[in-house]
Amino acid sequence: MDTPPLTPATLLLTLDILGTFVFAMSGAAAGVKKQLDVFGVCVLAFVAATAGGLARDVLIGAVPPAGISDWRYIATSLAAGAVTFLWYPRVQRLNTVILVFDAAGLGLFAVAGTEKALAYGLDPAASAMLGMLTGIGGGVVRDVLVNEVPVVLRADLYAVAALAGAAVVIFGSILHLPGAIMAPTGAVLCFLMRLVAIRRRVNLPVASEGAGVRQ
Amino acid sequence: MDTPPLTPATLLLTLDILGTFVFAMSGAAAGVKKQLDVFGVCVLAFVAATAGGLARDVLIGAVPPAGISDWRYIATSLAAGAVTFLWYPRVQRLNTVILVFDAAGLGLFAVAGTEKALAYGLDPAASAMLGMLTGIGGGVVRDVLVNEVPVVLRADLYAVAALAGAAVVIFGSILHLPGAIMAPTGAVLCFLMRLVAIRRRVNLPVASEGAGVRQ
Amino acid sequence: MDTPPLTPATLLLTLDILGTFVFAMSGAAAGVKKQLDVFGVCVLAFVAATAGGLARDVLIGAVPPAGISDWRYIATSLAAGAVTFLWYPRVQRLNTVILVFDAAGLGLFAVAGTEKALAYGLDPAASAMLGMLTGIGGGVVRDVLVNEVPVVLRADLYAVAALAGAAVVIFGSILHLPGAIMAPTGAVLCFLMRLVAIRRRVNLPVASEGAGVRQ
Repeated sequence: MDTPPLTPATLLLTLDILGTFVFAMSGAAAGVKKQLDVFGVCVLAFVAATAGGLARDVLIGAVPPAGISDWRYIATSLAAGAVTFLWYPRVQRLNTVILVFDAAGLGLFAVAGTEKALAYGLDPAASAMLGMLTGIGGGVVRDVLVNEVPVVLRADLYAVAALAGAAVVIFGSILHLPGAIMAPTGAVLCFLMRLVAIRRRVNLPVASEGAGVRQ
Repeated sequence: MDTPPLTPATLLLTLDILGTFVFAMSGAAAGVKKQLDVFGVCVLAFVAATAGGLARDVLIGAVPPAGISDWRYIATSLAAGAVTFLWYPRVQRLNTVILVFDAAGLGLFAVAGTEKALAYGLDPAASAMLGMLTGIGGGVVRDVLVNEVPVVLRADLYAVAALAGAAVVIFGSILHLPGAIMAPTGAVLCFLMRLVAIRRRVNLPVASEGAGVRQ
Repeated sequence: MDTPPLTPATLLLTLDILGTFVFAMSGAAAGVKKQLDVFGVCVLAFVAATAGGLARDVLIGAVPPAGISDWRYIATSLAAGAVTFLWYPRVQRLNTVILVFDAAGLGLFAVAGTEKALAYGLDPAASAMLGMLTGIGGGVVRDVLVNEVPVVLRADLYAVAALAGAAVVIFGSILHLPGAIMAPTGAVLCFLMRLVAIRRRVNLPVASEGAGVRQ
């Protein structure tokens, strides 16, 4: 049988679609928990998967954004929404698997978002922030829509991991290191930070309202 | 007395203004319920009437959006806000009338949004989603601002009706059917779906968190 | 010692940075209250300081927005976030000072936002609304993210003061009065309205859900 060769572009698209699918599942799961109907669940799946990229594209002027103009992302989101809706109890049991995929998606989105911002001529600091936004934006909008304080602002090195992945790309760009090495490095760093944070329940300190900083 | 002839353009503008007015009333009513002051009520009226169109225009690159660059929409929103604020108890008694107008506004906005996206060169799937966004976006932002899970994601075939109206336009566009027939058909289909859903309290199924799908 | 001369441009930039700092502190304080970690606090600081300007720039097509493409705003926001996080109890005791700076920032942002919208060719009504949005947008997004009804829609002439400042600029623009006079006048008017509202606890009327208008 003739299989197509696994080029970097094919690999990247595959990972991107996988990241979209997993993020969409997180949105759909939030919708099921809030007792949204099947359509609301699919909308939330789509939003969780694409809001970060949409915000980035609107801010850098890349309109219409890929998230709505490429049917593959729409189809992937809706498929994830349908799967989660139909087999929610089983999806829940896959919780650990999903967390791992979600960490992979975060690394990928953060790195890809940073590179796109750099390609559109934004400076390094702005590109790193847009990379982070690409990674966490979907989760923020998802939680706002189901009326909760975004979990990505609260827990387990989520936004920090995204920023770290973005920072590796920026660092490589400033030093003119090859992107084919720095991009995967950034994504893997973000991925590993999240895994460690989840396993050990590592959190950043929160400030005390009464006095000083609590660890 | 000489009245101007009722051209399709005049009719469309009239319906558009009417839809804006009704959507603005829904925003204003939400503001009054949350005890916002008169200004907050007017802001919410404006947001509920225009947020869907603003989001669509930003995503397709049609800036500045008509919702803020055409004074008639601003004036209509503020008038609806003032009317609702001053006569809230009476407005409430008109609840059924408002639901009917709201259904009409939804159909109109969904169809008009789809056509605008097509005119800007987006592909069919993206245009249908943007049409739906035009119809439900205002209600989503309105509910987020008053700190509630958007009702349009939860109830009574709201988003589905908007998408159905958009789908009719897309279907017509693909088959090169005349827009002058397909657009009203889409709007009327959306309108009727909402009316039936309201009368019979039709809802889509929600998933059970425990097991399987509940009807 | 040689100090640079205080040109209007230098003064404006200084005020703009100061406004950014104070708005960022309000975002950081909201994050600390919700027990976000240090990173979430910084994100919220950045959002509160820049969301109004970002929304305005996206709506008028000025992308990438200054709020993300100029590192000074990012650095200022993060500094404000760090300061608030580390010394929250002391920051709280400065509450009155912060309210005064916040009023100054509001006036400045509202006026600057109005002028930018006019410069991009928007008509007067739209420019005034975008000026108000620049002033209140950050506070709205901040409150939505920590899951509260935006306080700027509820209290103490906040949005009204921003709109009044914007209106002065519009008024001057229509009558071709010199901007060097009208802009400061608008900012000062907004500033004073807020101070009076805070001191006297002036609020706009809210509508009664039962009957009529309550004062």
